[in-house]
Amino acid sequence: MTILFASAVDRADDYRQAMAARLPDLGFRIHPDVGPADAIQYALVWSPPPGLLASLPNLRAVFNLGAGVDAILAARDAVPASVPVVRLADAGMAPQMVEWVLHGVLHFQRRFDDYAREQAAGRWTRLPVRPAPRTTVGLMGLGVLGGAVARVLVSLGYAVRGWSRRPKTVPGVETFHGTDGLAPFLAETEILVCLVPLTDETRGLLNAETLRRLPAGAAVINAARGAHIVDADLLALLDAGHLRGAQLDVFEPEPLPNDHPFWRHPRVRLTPHIAAVTKVEPTCDQIADTIRRLERGEPLAHQVDRHAGY
Amino acid sequence: MTILFASAVDRADDYRQAMAARLPDLGFRIHPDVGPADAIQYALVWSPPPGLLASLPNLRAVFNLGAGVDAILAARDAVPASVPVVRLADAGMAPQMVEWVLHGVLHFQRRFDDYAREQAAGRWTRLPVRPAPRTTVGLMGLGVLGGAVARVLVSLGYAVRGWSRRPKTVPGVETFHGTDGLAPFLAETEILVCLVPLTDETRGLLNAETLRRLPAGAAVINAARGAHIVDADLLALLDAGHLRGAQLDVFEPEPLPNDHPFWRHPRVRLTPHIAAVTKVEPTCDQIADTIRRLERGEPLAHQVDRHAGY
Repeated sequence: MTILFASAVDRADDYRQAMAARLPDLGFRIHPDVGPADAIQYALVWSPPPGLLASLPNLRAVFNLGAGVDAILAARDAVPASVPVVRLADAGMAPQMVEWVLHGVLHFQRRFDDYAREQAAGRWTRLPVRPAPRTTVGLMGLGVLGGAVARVLVSLGYAVRGWSRRPKTVPGVETFHGTDGLAPFLAETEILVCLVPLTDETRGLLNAETLRRLPAGAAVINAARGAHIVDADLLALLDAGHLRGAQLDVFEPEPLPNDHPFWRHPRVRLTPHIAAVTKVEPTCDQIADTIRRLERGEPLAHQVDRHAGY
Repeated sequence: MTILFASAVDRADDYRQAMAARLPDLGFRIHPDVGPADAIQYALVWSPPPGLLASLPNLRAVFNLGAGVDAILAARDAVPASVPVVRLADAGMAPQMVEWVLHGVLHFQRRFDDYAREQAAGRWTRLPVRPAPRTTVGLMGLGVLGGAVARVLVSLGYAVRGWSRRPKTVPGVETFHGTDGLAPFLAETEILVCLVPLTDETRGLLNAETLRRLPAGAAVINAARGAHIVDADLLALLDAGHLRGAQLDVFEPEPLPNDHPFWRHPRVRLTPHIAAVTKVEPTCDQIADTIRRLERGEPLAHQVDRHAGY
């Protein structure tokens, strides 16, 4: 029983040790040192190289080192439909995501962007601020991460609304769903937080038409995937003054190319896809539990619905 | 029955209207248009001009337009001991203070300061972050504001410790008190948040000796009074690299002079005393309630202990 690790951004040794502590009989190979392909039953991957998963004839499950499985599903033809793709339920990401998003919401609501400009200009200027209950934060995506963010924002008194593909109920949150719900959701969202999975339906969802529906002066926070945003449309609306700013953690492609205008735009704050990183210990707990279930022939939790794309 | 309003930073008309709605018989005069001094029974002030309160022979109470009463007590000889000074219990300030402090804590814990530098340099660099449970936030001051900040930080999973003059108990917070408790409190505080009242004992409390007790790489957040900090000592420790940064809302004097080095220091974020501003409606609710109690001869809540200084 062997698992293949393939990620350019996670530390293989940490995962090797953590998996050995949980499943001592599990072999652990690190890409590109795959060894005999038919000896691999499991794959633990982040943005795997094209063709890698298809080259493993005895694969029983693919584990994704992150919340979004879009990179794996992009290669969906290469993974037989009989092989389950398992996504991490949380893996320590929710508290981190809450922190990163909350910093962005506070940044725009409390006008730290304006105050940084005032400080740079040496001006002592008190600016009016709208209190949290009169600041509407709109969450796109109400899954594990979006739900955790919603709970904290509600507890801090913000007016929180949420949008998801299918109807959902979250205490204290005004919810919208589906294509019909998008326009009314956006119309009164002053701080938009994108946490939806990247699917064929959500690719490019934040474009000139949708972003223009946000009220003037709205801010955009994206911690989902870069491909949700049409970069040129976001930049045009920032430059036109319709949007006050953007806080971005994800880009298409990554790393963000050196000459991309986001790097130097005065109204864009960016971080290098660190909003919520997977934690080794809870990740390996989930993987070990899933492998044990598979070996016993039990049903899986958190299996990706390939049709829905998440 | 007449109240005198004297503040250079609050809008007199808002308070006039709000007080008239609550106490229609209350006269309202706005400094410097005091009128006959003996007709004034109440004063509603923020940093009143020297001699103003002493010039009112029939004063029954002084209301302070803020949480800190240091500016009024600095003129304590001028206000007869029989005249109660009433501080605002909250007046809508606690949620604002939570937001402003939380933004600072997240800023340093999640390394938004480092990421801003990386963005400016055009570098895609992922930096290690310590999670909230392994980040120690030390609150100086556990009153209405400090207590509210503590509750939210605890709920977000931070390791919270608190220091106050007298022993206090706050759920989930490791507490220290008095002179003896200061050194152990500081020794493991990675993000220091100052919310203590300004008194003779706390003036200059954050100086070279105390700030050096913070572990290397600590950050300082001050939303109390500028005079708590010895500016030159803070700057020296920032320049020496012992402190990673400071987020400051209060200064001595205010407005912060144009040539003060805080304005342009790359590791200082400053805002112009806006962390928590008094809100007209809750403030006037408290004032009207106190005036009614005084007129009925009932005991007061939130009366300042002039010996303690807060």
